[in-house]
Amino acid sequence: MTGEMTGVIREVVDAVKFDDAGLVPAVAQQHDSGEVLMVAWMNRKAIEETLRSGQVHYWSRSRRSLWRKGETSGQTQRLVELRIDCDGDTLLLLVEQTGAACHTGQRSCFYRAARDGGLVVVSDALADPEDLYGQ
Amino acid sequence: MTGEMTGVIREVVDAVKFDDAGLVPAVAQQHDSGEVLMVAWMNRKAIEETLRSGQVHYWSRSRRSLWRKGETSGQTQRLVELRIDCDGDTLLLLVEQTGAACHTGQRSCFYRAARDGGLVVVSDALADPEDLYGQ
Repeated sequence: MTGEMTGVIREVVDAVKFDDAGLVPAVAQQHDSGEVLMVAWMNRKAIEETLRSGQVHYWSRSRRSLWRKGETSGQTQRLVELRIDCDGDTLLLLVEQTGAACHTGQRSCFYRAARDGGLVVVSDALADPEDLYGQ
Repeated sequence: MTGEMTGVIREVVDAVKFDDAGLVPAVAQQHDSGEVLMVAWMNRKAIEETLRSGQVHYWSRSRRSLWRKGETSGQTQRLVELRIDCDGDTLLLLVEQTGAACHTGQRSCFYRAARDGGLVVVSDALADPEDLYGQ
């Protein structure tokens, strides 16, 4: 890691306002299509690992562990650009998403919309979750 | 409000997993360009008012009050579609944003990016905050 990269990481981490649990929400967006893929949580280490490796890492609140997106499913996220909002309490990750971002096999986690008839599924799954996580 | 609308609102609210404070994060995205504008928080009442009126409402954690986006600044958000993620703990609001979503006068709150040289501003403000909130 170059000294310049270390400086950027420090500047980003210093700009983030982590919540009481040491976390910040991160929105992952496909960099070219603009599709919002998912929202997950990052801690300081997840931000550092993401910027250092170029592969998006999150903090799993349920498993209480650092997690490289796609480490089990192969559905990785390559970081294209990290942005931070005006008050530093949310991140926006522009990414290159391989395959399905959602554990259901959907490209995006936001596949249900409120329409006249109620909540409806508005897209088709790309993959069978069994194929992504099974065995 | 029609009975059908009431049913949709109930179905959405029932599908949301609110946090311990009764809140859920909501990502606002310009419906046609795909630009991610901001992330804010909604409670049950904010969701109900948004779906009922078609104008996006949030819950202000600092002011502890319901807030119609643009009520002071005029920079309103008309709801085009509300989506919910796979596990119901985040909302995505596709909106028609009038002017600047950010209180700084920027179109989007995510106007700073981590680049080689550090955090840099990657867009120009649309408006002077003084003009939006002054007087």
